[in-house]
Amino acid sequence: MSEHPILRYVSAGAWALIEPLFSDRAKDLLIKLIDFMESDILPSEALFHSQISPDPKKRWESVPAVLGSLQKRAKELGLWNLWLSGGDFQGMAGGEGGGLSNLEYAVMAEIMGHSAILAPQATNCSAPDTGNMEVLARYGTQAQKDKYLTPLLNGEIRSSFSMTEYGVASSDATNLGNTTATLDPAKNSLSLSGHKWWITGAGDPRNIVHIVLAVTDPKNPSPHKRHSLVLVDPRAQGVKIIRPLTVFGYDDAPEGHCEVVYDNVKVDVDSGVVGGKAGLGRGFEIIQARLGPGRLHHCMRTIGIASRALDILLQRVSDPNRKTFGKYLKEHGTVVADIAHSRAEIDQARLLVLAAARRIDTEGAKGAMQDIGITKFTVPTMALKVVDRAMQVHGAEGVSADTPLPYFYASLRTLRYADGPDEVHIQQIGKKELKRVEDLKARTDKIRRDSERLLQANGLTRAKL
Amino acid sequence: MSEHPILRYVSAGAWALIEPLFSDRAKDLLIKLIDFMESDILPSEALFHSQISPDPKKRWESVPAVLGSLQKRAKELGLWNLWLSGGDFQGMAGGEGGGLSNLEYAVMAEIMGHSAILAPQATNCSAPDTGNMEVLARYGTQAQKDKYLTPLLNGEIRSSFSMTEYGVASSDATNLGNTTATLDPAKNSLSLSGHKWWITGAGDPRNIVHIVLAVTDPKNPSPHKRHSLVLVDPRAQGVKIIRPLTVFGYDDAPEGHCEVVYDNVKVDVDSGVVGGKAGLGRGFEIIQARLGPGRLHHCMRTIGIASRALDILLQRVSDPNRKTFGKYLKEHGTVVADIAHSRAEIDQARLLVLAAARRIDTEGAKGAMQDIGITKFTVPTMALKVVDRAMQVHGAEGVSADTPLPYFYASLRTLRYADGPDEVHIQQIGKKELKRVEDLKARTDKIRRDSERLLQANGLTRAKL
Amino acid sequence: MSEHPILRYVSAGAWALIEPLFSDRAKDLLIKLIDFMESDILPSEALFHSQISPDPKKRWESVPAVLGSLQKRAKELGLWNLWLSGGDFQGMAGGEGGGLSNLEYAVMAEIMGHSAILAPQATNCSAPDTGNMEVLARYGTQAQKDKYLTPLLNGEIRSSFSMTEYGVASSDATNLGNTTATLDPAKNSLSLSGHKWWITGAGDPRNIVHIVLAVTDPKNPSPHKRHSLVLVDPRAQGVKIIRPLTVFGYDDAPEGHCEVVYDNVKVDVDSGVVGGKAGLGRGFEIIQARLGPGRLHHCMRTIGIASRALDILLQRVSDPNRKTFGKYLKEHGTVVADIAHSRAEIDQARLLVLAAARRIDTEGAKGAMQDIGITKFTVPTMALKVVDRAMQVHGAEGVSADTPLPYFYASLRTLRYADGPDEVHIQQIGKKELKRVEDLKARTDKIRRDSERLLQANGLTRAKL
Amino acid sequence: MSEHPILRYVSAGAWALIEPLFSDRAKDLLIKLIDFMESDILPSEALFHSQISPDPKKRWESVPAVLGSLQKRAKELGLWNLWLSGGDFQGMAGGEGGGLSNLEYAVMAEIMGHSAILAPQATNCSAPDTGNMEVLARYGTQAQKDKYLTPLLNGEIRSSFSMTEYGVASSDATNLGNTTATLDPAKNSLSLSGHKWWITGAGDPRNIVHIVLAVTDPKNPSPHKRHSLVLVDPRAQGVKIIRPLTVFGYDDAPEGHCEVVYDNVKVDVDSGVVGGKAGLGRGFEIIQARLGPGRLHHCMRTIGIASRALDILLQRVSDPNRKTFGKYLKEHGTVVADIAHSRAEIDQARLLVLAAARRIDTEGAKGAMQDIGITKFTVPTMALKVVDRAMQVHGAEGVSADTPLPYFYASLRTLRYADGPDEVHIQQIGKKELKRVEDLKARTDKIRRDSERLLQANGLTRAKL
Repeated sequence: MSEHPILRYVSAGAWALIEPLFSDRAKDLLIKLIDFMESDILPSEALFHSQISPDPKKRWESVPAVLGSLQKRAKELGLWNLWLSGGDFQGMAGGEGGGLSNLEYAVMAEIMGHSAILAPQATNCSAPDTGNMEVLARYGTQAQKDKYLTPLLNGEIRSSFSMTEYGVASSDATNLGNTTATLDPAKNSLSLSGHKWWITGAGDPRNIVHIVLAVTDPKNPSPHKRHSLVLVDPRAQGVKIIRPLTVFGYDDAPEGHCEVVYDNVKVDVDSGVVGGKAGLGRGFEIIQARLGPGRLHHCMRTIGIASRALDILLQRVSDPNRKTFGKYLKEHGTVVADIAHSRAEIDQARLLVLAAARRIDTEGAKGAMQDIGITKFTVPTMALKVVDRAMQVHGAEGVSADTPLPYFYASLRTLRYADGPDEVHIQQIGKKELKRVEDLKARTDKIRRDSERLLQANGLTRAKL
Repeated sequence: MSEHPILRYVSAGAWALIEPLFSDRAKDLLIKLIDFMESDILPSEALFHSQISPDPKKRWESVPAVLGSLQKRAKELGLWNLWLSGGDFQGMAGGEGGGLSNLEYAVMAEIMGHSAILAPQATNCSAPDTGNMEVLARYGTQAQKDKYLTPLLNGEIRSSFSMTEYGVASSDATNLGNTTATLDPAKNSLSLSGHKWWITGAGDPRNIVHIVLAVTDPKNPSPHKRHSLVLVDPRAQGVKIIRPLTVFGYDDAPEGHCEVVYDNVKVDVDSGVVGGKAGLGRGFEIIQARLGPGRLHHCMRTIGIASRALDILLQRVSDPNRKTFGKYLKEHGTVVADIAHSRAEIDQARLLVLAAARRIDTEGAKGAMQDIGITKFTVPTMALKVVDRAMQVHGAEGVSADTPLPYFYASLRTLRYADGPDEVHIQQIGKKELKRVEDLKARTDKIRRDSERLLQANGLTRAKL
Repeated sequence: MSEHPILRYVSAGAWALIEPLFSDRAKDLLIKLIDFMESDILPSEALFHSQISPDPKKRWESVPAVLGSLQKRAKELGLWNLWLSGGDFQGMAGGEGGGLSNLEYAVMAEIMGHSAILAPQATNCSAPDTGNMEVLARYGTQAQKDKYLTPLLNGEIRSSFSMTEYGVASSDATNLGNTTATLDPAKNSLSLSGHKWWITGAGDPRNIVHIVLAVTDPKNPSPHKRHSLVLVDPRAQGVKIIRPLTVFGYDDAPEGHCEVVYDNVKVDVDSGVVGGKAGLGRGFEIIQARLGPGRLHHCMRTIGIASRALDILLQRVSDPNRKTFGKYLKEHGTVVADIAHSRAEIDQARLLVLAAARRIDTEGAKGAMQDIGITKFTVPTMALKVVDRAMQVHGAEGVSADTPLPYFYASLRTLRYADGPDEVHIQQIGKKELKRVEDLKARTDKIRRDSERLLQANGLTRAKL
Repeated sequence: MSEHPILRYVSAGAWALIEPLFSDRAKDLLIKLIDFMESDILPSEALFHSQISPDPKKRWESVPAVLGSLQKRAKELGLWNLWLSGGDFQGMAGGEGGGLSNLEYAVMAEIMGHSAILAPQATNCSAPDTGNMEVLARYGTQAQKDKYLTPLLNGEIRSSFSMTEYGVASSDATNLGNTTATLDPAKNSLSLSGHKWWITGAGDPRNIVHIVLAVTDPKNPSPHKRHSLVLVDPRAQGVKIIRPLTVFGYDDAPEGHCEVVYDNVKVDVDSGVVGGKAGLGRGFEIIQARLGPGRLHHCMRTIGIASRALDILLQRVSDPNRKTFGKYLKEHGTVVADIAHSRAEIDQARLLVLAAARRIDTEGAKGAMQDIGITKFTVPTMALKVVDRAMQVHGAEGVSADTPLPYFYASLRTLRYADGPDEVHIQQIGKKELKRVEDLKARTDKIRRDSERLLQANGLTRAKL
């Protein structure tokens, strides 16, 4: 009798713990997804990369053709938009894929993480589109939904979220003040100017909208009510894509992470502010709501990336061509220890992610902020360690493009900043934990009083050793 | 509305994940246990320690009186023998407390870990008695059960497991050859001689039996069939308790971890070999079965010890008397970071333990060996880190007997050897993981072939970057 | 041709670096010291410990007899008071041993660290006496020198430094306000009251003086001018030794680290304030001067402790009786890696200590504060790691009194608080380093301007990748 | 009075230790070098990079013009070929720069590491040319010296060392068997065929010679006598540069690390085998001699790279534009702690390098193998940690090309494989250390016997605690 395919990916202990919480539909989708990954996605990776031109210009102008056929297949299999966990998309064209719990999706996303670039795109589960769809579904006007949300749900267009500012310490979002959208009440329009960077997807030829965080009410006494989200057509007058930024030398074409200047871009208030006129001043409120599950999605996929790195490591150290000094690499005790530690670290981190996902299911994203925060600063660091060990057993090949490992490393390294650097999350979690002290102290004080009473009743003093 | 008391001990994410797997009885017992800990056990700790004499002789001669009343209370509350998870004890006097799943007990054991010396004794859940009871229940004769198991289940006596040999590298159990029990067929008796050490509980005045691993069939071709388990009365002729060994500077009176010499101790085969005559040669088989859940019990309690250390840390850094340079300790960023890391590490480790416990529930102890092995080398090291941080924020007080922290540290440090050193488990887990390679390679090879086919079909070669 | 004996203790690279800085006398003393260690000190360790009574009372009442003969031998060999590096003691009876550079003494102290309890006592190089002698030599009146310094230099008496206060966060010395010495101008005397703890050596029967930090001028506007150092006879009316504190269960008899209450102890100003009347208000000034080299002495010896732990480890893993699964422990790759890392870590840390010692020689203790601070937070943590590895390869024996390792661990652990916790030194060194920024920025700005000029001159713009 | 400029780069403690070992000439050169770095090299970095074309073809075809003028300047200043420490080059044209001790050069190389790409090239101190020059000077024929060594010493040409084989675990050099040079005795020529990769510099238009390790005597019973070093013109018939490999996403144009196929390349024995006919079979002997100092040179520069990363970090965290939540980054305790740890780690690692360099000076490269091995596995890992911290404080900018940090990271990461992976060196050092056991055991046994005698003489037994 053959083992359940999920056990090729997820530790048996974790599966034993969560299996009772999986619906039959989710179990069915999971098996389909695994088969799709193994039969379609992973075999298509090489073609996907080969279809991106090495030419510095052309690589930004087209999209690998294989992606289209994979997307078609994913739709047929019902593996489309699996990330849609809430009720916001019900009844919406393209919203059929949803309805999984966050816990169920967590496992799917981990599996997709084994092909972290291609699988999310092929199934329409990739950032920043997922977060942008959430924003539009919850806060967009009907016209905005028709124009952007429907084609995003169908995977026909792509989008950017334009927040981080050049030269500004953007991890404190209240610092984001240099991009302004000045209202011309006569025309009911805004004039948007600003200098952003790290705008993921802004290089993509399919991109038709940037959701730009901009100050529309600079004098509002509350720093959290000054901003709005503005929808900008990247082909509009005044939008300049300065350059794709590189990450450890990688440009991530054709999506890219771009430096973008908005120079007096004209935007109509009703159609161009998320939520229309009523959305003015709600930028902060909306981005706060956007971040929670998105952070966790990254962590879910990261478990998959780390697992794939370990799979690659395992095969390398078992390769008879890689014997040194008469021994397989896997015969070295330090290699075996690295494997065991990687196994333990991945298993632990996965469980953290699953618990956080489950918490969103029972308490909502806000109620799960602590669990999400812990995964946020734990999971990428763990994965970097595993990938680094995998690189090391490859010798020089491990830093070259002949393995996906250095690219994994570079991508994961960005997660230690993206959506807030580790340090911010660490301080928040630590401070949250300190809030337990009052209750702890009350209990400890009572215990101490009770213990003194018992000592006295027995005619003893506390032992001083 | 007040929060569920379990959330004072277990992270909300973990609880959300496991709560659906808890029976109503287990939920009820959990609430009772928490109340028992806070109202009885923790307030009695000081008295318990004060009732152990500082005198080097007397401290081995009596048992703190408070223990008796706590045991009585635990029985009344139904918090007795909660560790009995299997069916081996059903219908047996004293076996009523059982029936929890390993997952349910894992949470109970963690809670007890907040008072890791006293709570397990007060509820009859402490090593080595639990493992010894398992041995007797599964392999003992009826007479042996009557004589030893019943009073053990009732908490009336204590016992030792006498395995590790002086001067022998005992982590490889096949090395254990210096303790022999030579058969005198005429008298149907054994003459036992050997030099053991680290025999926990051998100093205890309540102890009436050592279960001794000894070679009874030295010429058996299988090194795993040479040993038997022999029941020895510590007051018998020829038994010498040489000394209690210290762990760092602690002697763990009155239980102790003793060096013991058995010098021609006479034992009747029928009554004195576990399982009687039929038990001869089955020593290895029995000790293998004994180890799995026991290892996990240590890990469960260890999560509780680490949690208590963090609770102590949190209170110390919030103490206004401990300000330095005008700041609370908790206002230092590095302290906050230590708290966050401790929180994250405890939460991860707990989830590992829970997954392993769940695995025992679904697959049995043997099926869960990998999960247990991972917790075995992960959890104590994690807890040592947390305890060390807690010591550090106390300054010199942190290494003194004015906090329980150095004792926690010393106890936890032994877990990195007990039941096999970390290194052995690490190598086993790593090698187990390497067994996945064959299957991995088959899938990877297929993926690579498919990908070559796709490249060819598209007239492309694999991008060489 | 045999190797220089120093190479048994110090890495050849380090010795190559410092050998040209050693005087002939120092080289000669070094060889004598090594021989004294190997022929006398190390063989006497067991006797020394066996001469301390296990009886809880008697162990505080006498001093191991072997110490006396070792001290006599050390004096004969000229290995007495080697720590006296400055000129303060020249011409003083007992001051003959000095005159080594701090660099030279650093190596001697490391060698002594191989027997960290016995060797410093046998050679009169142990804390807190060394620091106390410095205080008396620099700041004491002639009468104080005659009474205390001369017998200290001769090893006839012992002393304590009484600073840390019970219940006070003493790592911020300005918090030390609860011990007061109120002046009675009529009698020219002080009445000293306070509650101190961690007073090393206060349990020792040879101790005849506590140097107590006490507030004598509570209203002085400068918090650094309120304290004086007061000389107190431990047998005086009002001095109560409450208890020896334990460190991980160890009491360090007969020296001890004691809790001491001073209750209206009368002290004459002229004879009892360090420096007499002129010393009033100079407590802080004096303790600052006292700390620098003392911190480094601990680090020097710590290198020796770590080295001995590694020596013990090396022998254990080569012991044929400790084979497991058919292999020597030294045949396991992870053990070999632990050895290599230990070697590298000890070698690095030693070099840090040597550089700091050399810096004191060239710049004085104040000029070397940064180098000393770095060693202070680096060396004990390093040594703890090495000792922990050594414990681990011993299995359970490694935490027992059958090896010195757990005692090493406990002692070293205190160094992470003693003379200021690691955290304080880390923050100081980090802030000191930040002072380089102004100069760095000036240079970087100039380089940037020059580079812009070069780009312009070549008609190029800075490459934006 | 201004501080010595070296103290801007090297810790005062280290300088105090080594300054007495510096000649006046070395001190003078050091000051000149620092000025050259600050006035010329560092300001030219941007121009250098801007002069490399972004075009995928052209970037391999020319060399930045600024390099020529920097080289000219370096020659004028006497800062040319400083690495020439031995006597091999005396009296040779271009060999004038040499004569520094390895210790003196270590400091120079660290300073150059602050501009690790440009400074070594500008001063003709860069790998692989330095090692190749050593090979030619020691083993080349006069004709080979004239043709290759003289222009290399003058910086007129560049060279490659072609050793690592494609698909072969090359860290065990005896595996290198796939590149063969078959002798045609009739023509006294070789026919070289093989597939190499990671051939640094093979992309460079200035390169006129590859020194290729090839099997010339496959049947020699000693696996260390089968190889020879063959000089190959990269423009010869049969040499194919397949591609530059990337390191992370960097191609290191115009030098590159190339995959190279040699397909029946004809080479004359007398002119084309290093050492001519007499050099046949000496390949292994020569490469062994080549590796020692080269490994250390990498470590020396690595200290400089880490130092520059720390300098960049310090400036970033002090930048008022980078405040978050109202605080400078440098006001966060964790940032300060990272700085302190970086300072301590760099200082320790530098001292290791200096001790190893000194050891080469006193014992030769062979005698210093242990010291070199320790630096080899210690220094790059240390530097990666420092660079990673520097990246982290930059947020996303830290992984982009707007700082040199990710490039530093990628380059340093290769050092954990280059010239043997860390693991090989770690095992070697650990095993070397284990060779001390015999001597240790003899001494320990003697000490134990002496101690037993002392115990007996005093009528005591060893205390059993």
